[in-house]
Amino acid sequence: MICCRKLLVLISCCLLVLETWAVDSLKVYPTHWWTGMKNTKLQLLVHATNIKSAGRVALKPYAGVKMTSVSTYANPNYLTIYLDIGKTTAPGLLTFTFHNTTAVVAQLTYSLQPRNTQNGKTRIKGINSSDLIYLIMPDRFSNGDTSNDRIAGLKDQSLDRSNYFKRHGGDLKGIQNYLGYLQQLGVTALWLNPVLLNDMPDRTEHGYAFTDHYTIDPRLGGASAYRELIDSLHKRGMKIIQDAVYNHVGIEHFLYRDLPDSSWFHWWPVYTNTTYKDQVLMDPYAAQIDKKRMSNGWFSPVMPDLNQNNPQAASFLIQHAIWCTEEFGLDGWRIDTYAYNDLDFMNRCNKALLDEYPQLHLFGETWVHGIPNQSFFARNKYDIPYKSNLPGVTDFQLNLYGIVPALTQAVGWTEGVNRLYLTTTNDFVYADPGKNVIFLDNHDISRFFSVVGEDIAKQKMGIAWLLTFRGIPQLYYGTEILMKNFADPDGLVRLDFPGGWSGDAANKFEPGGRTPAENDVYNYVRTLANYRKTSPALTTGKLMQYVPEDGVYVYFRYTAVQTVMCVMNPADQVKEIDMHRFGERTKPFTKARNIIDGVTADINNKLKVPAKTLWVGELLP
Amino acid sequence: MICCRKLLVLISCCLLVLETWAVDSLKVYPTHWWTGMKNTKLQLLVHATNIKSAGRVALKPYAGVKMTSVSTYANPNYLTIYLDIGKTTAPGLLTFTFHNTTAVVAQLTYSLQPRNTQNGKTRIKGINSSDLIYLIMPDRFSNGDTSNDRIAGLKDQSLDRSNYFKRHGGDLKGIQNYLGYLQQLGVTALWLNPVLLNDMPDRTEHGYAFTDHYTIDPRLGGASAYRELIDSLHKRGMKIIQDAVYNHVGIEHFLYRDLPDSSWFHWWPVYTNTTYKDQVLMDPYAAQIDKKRMSNGWFSPVMPDLNQNNPQAASFLIQHAIWCTEEFGLDGWRIDTYAYNDLDFMNRCNKALLDEYPQLHLFGETWVHGIPNQSFFARNKYDIPYKSNLPGVTDFQLNLYGIVPALTQAVGWTEGVNRLYLTTTNDFVYADPGKNVIFLDNHDISRFFSVVGEDIAKQKMGIAWLLTFRGIPQLYYGTEILMKNFADPDGLVRLDFPGGWSGDAANKFEPGGRTPAENDVYNYVRTLANYRKTSPALTTGKLMQYVPEDGVYVYFRYTAVQTVMCVMNPADQVKEIDMHRFGERTKPFTKARNIIDGVTADINNKLKVPAKTLWVGELLP
Repeated sequence: MICCRKLLVLISCCLLVLETWAVDSLKVYPTHWWTGMKNTKLQLLVHATNIKSAGRVALKPYAGVKMTSVSTYANPNYLTIYLDIGKTTAPGLLTFTFHNTTAVVAQLTYSLQPRNTQNGKTRIKGINSSDLIYLIMPDRFSNGDTSNDRIAGLKDQSLDRSNYFKRHGGDLKGIQNYLGYLQQLGVTALWLNPVLLNDMPDRTEHGYAFTDHYTIDPRLGGASAYRELIDSLHKRGMKIIQDAVYNHVGIEHFLYRDLPDSSWFHWWPVYTNTTYKDQVLMDPYAAQIDKKRMSNGWFSPVMPDLNQNNPQAASFLIQHAIWCTEEFGLDGWRIDTYAYNDLDFMNRCNKALLDEYPQLHLFGETWVHGIPNQSFFARNKYDIPYKSNLPGVTDFQLNLYGIVPALTQAVGWTEGVNRLYLTTTNDFVYADPGKNVIFLDNHDISRFFSVVGEDIAKQKMGIAWLLTFRGIPQLYYGTEILMKNFADPDGLVRLDFPGGWSGDAANKFEPGGRTPAENDVYNYVRTLANYRKTSPALTTGKLMQYVPEDGVYVYFRYTAVQTVMCVMNPADQVKEIDMHRFGERTKPFTKARNIIDGVTADINNKLKVPAKTLWVGELLP
Repeated sequence: MICCRKLLVLISCCLLVLETWAVDSLKVYPTHWWTGMKNTKLQLLVHATNIKSAGRVALKPYAGVKMTSVSTYANPNYLTIYLDIGKTTAPGLLTFTFHNTTAVVAQLTYSLQPRNTQNGKTRIKGINSSDLIYLIMPDRFSNGDTSNDRIAGLKDQSLDRSNYFKRHGGDLKGIQNYLGYLQQLGVTALWLNPVLLNDMPDRTEHGYAFTDHYTIDPRLGGASAYRELIDSLHKRGMKIIQDAVYNHVGIEHFLYRDLPDSSWFHWWPVYTNTTYKDQVLMDPYAAQIDKKRMSNGWFSPVMPDLNQNNPQAASFLIQHAIWCTEEFGLDGWRIDTYAYNDLDFMNRCNKALLDEYPQLHLFGETWVHGIPNQSFFARNKYDIPYKSNLPGVTDFQLNLYGIVPALTQAVGWTEGVNRLYLTTTNDFVYADPGKNVIFLDNHDISRFFSVVGEDIAKQKMGIAWLLTFRGIPQLYYGTEILMKNFADPDGLVRLDFPGGWSGDAANKFEPGGRTPAENDVYNYVRTLANYRKTSPALTTGKLMQYVPEDGVYVYFRYTAVQTVMCVMNPADQVKEIDMHRFGERTKPFTKARNIIDGVTADINNKLKVPAKTLWVGELLP
């Protein structure tokens, strides 16, 4: 099967141009497809100069495949072919011919491949609370292949590590080189900032301005490097999450530069930015103009806003998501700027992905303020007209109104650890809060080490919380080696991982390259993350939390076979807590083993918790 | 009918003590009841020394009334008689006899009265968003009857206006004397802090420690003064809201001092206060002990916590609520410390009241932090196991996270007017946010004038918001004459209304007694509140709000026949707003009349809004 698949890949998208005056270069999206998909419908967007002049399209008879219709656009350079691919269709090559009134003007060979399986089973495992996600900006982690640092023909020819807005040369091979480092650290899954081509003149380092959905950025190593990285991950039992951007494209995207028709994007009489005010989407009192500005306003002047109500545009996006999932064997999708999308489109898109891949995890970026706001975008307990079907979110509430105030605010009725506690009690509004991704920082916000005042003890407390709390933990690259800075500007939180480039002054991938403090924190992450890997309590256990008292917040993770007690004491003083209050979880245990240092403590009466410590102990008989 | 009712009142609860060795003083609760109630069940709690020794209770035959059973308690001083009163039962007197083995030891005459109607119709109108509620602490508003300032036999014999924790002599007659003042101001309903007897030795001024549910505090004038006040209100077309306390009683309550049995209250091995942490009630991760401490812990050491799971205790509370509603003709209940009650009990209690009086308004005190928290206690859109049936709440969120930050915080992404806007967008979680009671301050929190830094302009902005926003506005006594102070301690926000006592240095009920600033604010309230009375937009209209821009928050109230535009500019500078954005609400209008000064402005292009102003304008063709 593998050999057959490779052959088909090689000849897919083959175009035989019979008369160059008619079509000079033909592209088709998706570039290929598969047989045996649950959804039998497929829409092929054909892009070639003046392809519309071929008045007729014919499909050479192929058992199981029907061409149901063809549609054209205002722009003569596009056609859409609609197919129905019966469930039992055999893999092979479809042949389309494009006719004008007298002759065949072009021919397209289109590959229908067998499903991408591993030993006959899906490669896609999905992401869940047993995982530890590590977020990497590929341009900034490690340069594994210097030959792709600049790619001739691309608009951004910058390569300047001294400027955090220019390209630095990091790539997928660089990431692949350090999978050992990451796995040793306890990481089980990678989320990479977008890997699709951003052929923009400037600010291409972050990847959120796609210019071609079907090309992996060659500066990162292209599709082959992506495939190799994912194969390596899967061989290690690790997983991959891709970053989806449905809301907009880069202004240099071919769909914008050579518009199929005006209805593919949102237009405004004068440039109109989105308000970034997600609230209008749930507000019972919102004005139409505010809703329109939020959803249809552009995310930035160089990111045109896609009209996801255009059925062809919607199918283009949904099919691409399915294509990547199948093509690369993705375990999850992080969905960028979730609130800015057309929300009905998002439900259709999520459903299409989950119908095809029920085990896939989808989580949307919800950089919003308030539990009602965040939960509105996820599967929730609201009986309201708009019901989101998104399984999880990036849990900004447990960051902004959770772990950050817990470790940086003085304790008050609703401040400090009480804020973290309060925010967590509001989990009752989610269908499954355990599917939310929790984090200390990411590529858009200040690095946690700076947020906690470069306090090593608090950095460790944050890490301990991340690895013991409910949800799916996500670590941002470099947190384990104390990378710092405030996100002002965001380039400062996207600096290179030291040692990722040959010749770097220090190599923080190696113990010898790290300072004692960095080794301390690295080892702390490694110890706890590796303990977590095999801890039923921390990966799949329930949570029980207690009302904070005296500024100390106590919570438990537990299953029938294991109980882990966590005591967060952000104060500058040792705190002694009375254990009798926790009987519901501590019976019949009598001791606890500290996960970090292995020291066993008596838990029958009092427990001393050092200053600025999140004490994590597995309960013992 | 009225004469007949009065006669029945006079002879109700008549006890003929035949043998004083058996029962020396007999009381029955409810003290009387009515025929024609929807709920035909009635539980009579009989309280008399050693009444249990009367082994048998007999009801003299009465058409339609059945005594279904009698139950006793550990304490021989109580009995409960269970009755079923058929729907067509005629008013009259029931006669119960209490027998020991040889003789009748006591006799009880119990009055079944005709329903309290006015011209054959219910007197109860209910409270809705057309109302303006005025909250008064009866001891602190006006002393209308000096003869009741001290009542012989009561434990608190303090009378010291120089101490804000002692009694000051204010009473119901004092309130009645100023109904003209209040009605002129635009008030349509009164909410009084509790009027039931608090025979406690200290801190009786606030009224929240009941010692006898069936006695109106004689220091306030007793039941007759309460009835007269309400009759006066109803004659003026005004309404009355009573303050319910179901959670606890004063430690001197007869039910605590002479316990029916231990199950009427919650007991702890050592004194245990409630944690005041409502969160545990909704928290999916809460420990049992935390739930128990929240709900069953005492509100204070002198306020024993009632066990509302005791069926007799629950019926005692519910029947009392119905009794007051029928007896006095109440239009609404504000329910104290809502979250501290047993929530299943609250649903049963609310249902019993609303089954009997569908027009009645019930709103609970929700001094909590967060929209999820507050909405959990109200009718809401959550599909969760506990579904509250409470129609409305005291909307602390629109205070703490609404109008207060709007007028006191610098504008930020989630601060200042953006916080008010954001909180309002979350209304989607309520079944009907229009039933929530909004307020600037109350008897427990700092007075608004102090909160806004004694800034007259901001005081007026707060008032304008209160009278134009969604929900039912509640003004705290004295806000209109700039009463101030922070609630530290709470006595400071419960000072006397100047002029309410004869001989007061100033009489702020009269224009001549008020400073120019006080008259300015008084007139501002009066103008807007009286406009509001007949404004369909402000009383029953829908709300539309716009994303704040440049620190200016614009919202509209509107019906098919009227549109009112409100522009909140808390800045120190004049702001000019572009009107084109508001076309959805301003078409086809061209002008707006300022409600306060009557000046008409053009609204076609730009509108200038002065610094620190909430501009309120009715749109005109």
